[in-house]
Amino acid sequence: MAHSREAVLETLKEFLRFPSVSTDPAHAPDVRRAAEFTAGLLRSAGLDARLVESEGNHPLVRADWMGAPGKPTLLLYGHFDVQPPDPLDEWTSPPFEPEVRNGDIFARGACDDKGQVLIQIEALARLLSERGSLPVNVKILYEGEEETGGQHVTAYLAAHADELAADAALVCDTEMFAPDLPTICTGLRGIVYGELLVEGARTDLHSGVYGGAAPNPIQALATILAELKDRDGRIRIPGFLDRVRPPSPEERAAWARLPFDEAEYLEKEIGAPSLVGDPAIPVLERVWAQPTLEVHGIRGGFTGEGAKTVIPARALAKVSMRLVADQDPAEAAAMLSAAVERVCPPGVRAKYTAFHSGAPSLIDPSSPFIRAAASALTETFGVETVYMRSGGSIPIVGLFQKHLGIPSVLMGFGLPDDNLHAPNEKFHLENLHRGIDATARYLAKLGE
Amino acid sequence: MAHSREAVLETLKEFLRFPSVSTDPAHAPDVRRAAEFTAGLLRSAGLDARLVESEGNHPLVRADWMGAPGKPTLLLYGHFDVQPPDPLDEWTSPPFEPEVRNGDIFARGACDDKGQVLIQIEALARLLSERGSLPVNVKILYEGEEETGGQHVTAYLAAHADELAADAALVCDTEMFAPDLPTICTGLRGIVYGELLVEGARTDLHSGVYGGAAPNPIQALATILAELKDRDGRIRIPGFLDRVRPPSPEERAAWARLPFDEAEYLEKEIGAPSLVGDPAIPVLERVWAQPTLEVHGIRGGFTGEGAKTVIPARALAKVSMRLVADQDPAEAAAMLSAAVERVCPPGVRAKYTAFHSGAPSLIDPSSPFIRAAASALTETFGVETVYMRSGGSIPIVGLFQKHLGIPSVLMGFGLPDDNLHAPNEKFHLENLHRGIDATARYLAKLGE
Repeated sequence: MAHSREAVLETLKEFLRFPSVSTDPAHAPDVRRAAEFTAGLLRSAGLDARLVESEGNHPLVRADWMGAPGKPTLLLYGHFDVQPPDPLDEWTSPPFEPEVRNGDIFARGACDDKGQVLIQIEALARLLSERGSLPVNVKILYEGEEETGGQHVTAYLAAHADELAADAALVCDTEMFAPDLPTICTGLRGIVYGELLVEGARTDLHSGVYGGAAPNPIQALATILAELKDRDGRIRIPGFLDRVRPPSPEERAAWARLPFDEAEYLEKEIGAPSLVGDPAIPVLERVWAQPTLEVHGIRGGFTGEGAKTVIPARALAKVSMRLVADQDPAEAAAMLSAAVERVCPPGVRAKYTAFHSGAPSLIDPSSPFIRAAASALTETFGVETVYMRSGGSIPIVGLFQKHLGIPSVLMGFGLPDDNLHAPNEKFHLENLHRGIDATARYLAKLGE
Repeated sequence: MAHSREAVLETLKEFLRFPSVSTDPAHAPDVRRAAEFTAGLLRSAGLDARLVESEGNHPLVRADWMGAPGKPTLLLYGHFDVQPPDPLDEWTSPPFEPEVRNGDIFARGACDDKGQVLIQIEALARLLSERGSLPVNVKILYEGEEETGGQHVTAYLAAHADELAADAALVCDTEMFAPDLPTICTGLRGIVYGELLVEGARTDLHSGVYGGAAPNPIQALATILAELKDRDGRIRIPGFLDRVRPPSPEERAAWARLPFDEAEYLEKEIGAPSLVGDPAIPVLERVWAQPTLEVHGIRGGFTGEGAKTVIPARALAKVSMRLVADQDPAEAAAMLSAAVERVCPPGVRAKYTAFHSGAPSLIDPSSPFIRAAASALTETFGVETVYMRSGGSIPIVGLFQKHLGIPSVLMGFGLPDDNLHAPNEKFHLENLHRGIDATARYLAKLGE
């Protein structure tokens, strides 16, 4: 028997209560609990799920259902870890106490990616409950490190390519272009993420006594960041843009037909005085097909209440680059490191250290696995499916291509205003249920 | 009977144990305890000390000894509040558990300014104990807000100018040019201290989804800071340098004779790859007679462990300007605010808000109060007294000039490596005792 909408919602709430923040070692037990919960859901659906351990990493969840000989094998991927919830004081309801308001469920991980993991599992549960079997063979690979570089899954994929052999992957971790507009994502940006550390004097110094002669690492860090990216947002790392592949004329034309209003986007999604970037490049192309250099955090010196007249000894910034085809993460990281050293002003030492990276990916829309997905979505939503790219990074897609040689179908059910990685993350409940319908329909089509 | 060296040291240790951090409201009770302790020391010395209250501010400590009619009146100033002690993990011994190592006492406030307040009080105690009276009239004005803008003392000075009438002020809050080299300071830089806030989108955004179109306040803050000060350290605020008065040729010549070794200064005091600033201007002139624009702290976005791919909604920097004669704090603050708005890049709003300020000051070395001090110092140390300026700011000196019309004698006993405002602040115990000797001798000379 398929689960009722109410039962699915209660399961999702339970799932969302685990603060499975993978970047914070203090939350490792919560990530594990989320893994065990996920495995439990798969077992309830009828799959023989297990945790895969690796010293020092969060566990994976694996399961196989291979009872459809002669039919395709689909690798289902998702992640049960979440982004850190801070700044906490900007949440309307606490991030790990899910609350439904106006048809949306609010919690960290609601959309990214617990809600969409649940879509896959509930689709399997429904098919197994209704038919006693699945229309295709299925392999499950869920991880708990998607938000922190996916070390475990990367090593596992490299070591277990035979075990994971499949015809295609289904990844539910992207968004729809607009509410009620079924969407398949055909491109993802890659990423290089790291820290830029600037060091000056041996110790903090009094700004009165030494100001004017002692180097200031915060000022130097500002100088470096400003040299790497000009005031109009142009990235100035030599060679960085050389490999950027422009979208095809067909792709540009299709994007131009999407329902996109720049003024509304600025007003509703961004809420800043204006957008940034080269006005000659359409906004969608800027976020889908152009690389970025972005500062995610900065700290240095005294930032408490009041005043402290110190010249700090060091300053630090978290800096990433989003990459597009055909850029290479290792090459981009090396270019940034070299550029940092080149533009570093006198008096300080500066070094960029990359933590993790993922390659960009482009997927061929003519694949039968994409066509079946588009058809399942169109039937579920009653609207023609559109193709977009995503500015985000899902490094696993590049790894599936590299280790398994398979394409990934990016069929996602998030909405543009779901506040991923920000306070008040949400997931539209109607999309949770349509996602389950579409996924079950997709598997059925693949098995025909 | 004068106190023994051991007794003075024990008193200083007790004084240093109060974590009287005036910038942190949580430490307000500790600032009050330090005030009460200071008043108690004055009473033990034989003065009728009292606390002066003001709603919402830390108390002042006041006392008068007017038993020398016909003799000059000296206003003794110091402060019993201290800088915040962070970063805590860089202290060898805890900041509020004073420890003597190798002839130095280590604690926050050891030199700035509790050790030097104690010098004044012990000098009074010795004179009163030895003579039964003081050689001059004395007014005491000690505050607990020197490190946070001196709101209370500023208002008190304006309202009680008659009560505080004096012939000169004695301020012990500066340093000697070198160990064993008695020094009088004839100039101080002023200061404007405030916050530079940059705001972009309404909320934190996912850098994958929005990166390339959404403004980044950290990047914008970096751009603003880099526009305000170029990579060689030149301040680029229009008009900012117009009122800077160059040192006299005599002053420049005297500074050139001071025992100063730039390589040793870089190696021992700074410990950075190189100094910064215009190489055409001597280092001492850069820190004594040139203004600065300095970032003391910066924060924005995610700075915890690991990675978070967020575009933050805002970023903040603590920014000050040190000013020299004849710059004006209000004018400089207005110039900086205007410059920030002018260079602010697209997509964000930026605003500089000044918290507190103090005027720069220059003191005439021919004043009889300065000559007597130089003579007392030379006799105590057995070495000719030198004149320097200080790059630091003691706004009270400007206020004494403004409200009381009196010059300040800046006779300080700190050393250049005393780590003011930094971890491991210390005070050289020999200078504590020579300071008491010199101060007692100075008062005696003024009374002759």
